[in-house]
Amino acid sequence: MFELDPRLENDTTAVTDLPLSRAVLMDDARYPWLILIPRIVGLTEIHDMSPAEIMQLTKEATTASRTLQSLTGAHKMNVATLGNVVSQLHVHVVARFEGDAAWPAPVWGVGEAEPYEGTVRAEMMERVKTELDLAFI
Amino acid sequence: MFELDPRLENDTTAVTDLPLSRAVLMDDARYPWLILIPRIVGLTEIHDMSPAEIMQLTKEATTASRTLQSLTGAHKMNVATLGNVVSQLHVHVVARFEGDAAWPAPVWGVGEAEPYEGTVRAEMMERVKTELDLAFI
Repeated sequence: MFELDPRLENDTTAVTDLPLSRAVLMDDARYPWLILIPRIVGLTEIHDMSPAEIMQLTKEATTASRTLQSLTGAHKMNVATLGNVVSQLHVHVVARFEGDAAWPAPVWGVGEAEPYEGTVRAEMMERVKTELDLAFI
Repeated sequence: MFELDPRLENDTTAVTDLPLSRAVLMDDARYPWLILIPRIVGLTEIHDMSPAEIMQLTKEATTASRTLQSLTGAHKMNVATLGNVVSQLHVHVVARFEGDAAWPAPVWGVGEAEPYEGTVRAEMMERVKTELDLAFI
């Protein structure tokens, strides 16, 4: 049965289930940061999926990137699958701004996550969920 | 006319032209590291390509990842498009090994590149070129 790795579960909040992957939001107010996790058990590399699954994940990640950039006005999107620590396949989609906490370096391993304040997270999640769900009706 | 960003040109050696993207090898012996650059002028985000181009780039990046892991026996592949410094769209495909110079952190911004010694680079490039060209006959 598909389950999120406990570290992903602990650091994120679920946004929505797309046709292939679960979309979650990183609990870090420094960057609008989605992670997509294909709901396939035991998967660690994109190239181990079937061609149809690879194309579907690409659609979902591309849509997430376009959506998050559009909603946030980000200067640049970072889309990456690393998995050196958490091997369960997951795709980072991070909205980057000139002058953000890690700019221009990658976000991983830089400082400590900062909690969202008030209703900011709920509002962002609602907007992201609406856009992503609409894209995959 | 398509040209590589001068920083990409300076840090890499061309391996082969795939149907959509130029494949180059990073001149850094610490990690087997390919970069794919779609030959499209003025491109910075994957989601700004056409659907057909997105699918083609996905095929090429997935093939590069599978090939590099197969040739090197890497523990994990890192596939990422960041572009915070060099905005020309480029996809990193990095073969990672437990205990490599940055493990388990991402490779960007860690230490200094190390030159390949002797014929190692030429041999790797020849093997990668053969496999990639065969995949896109």
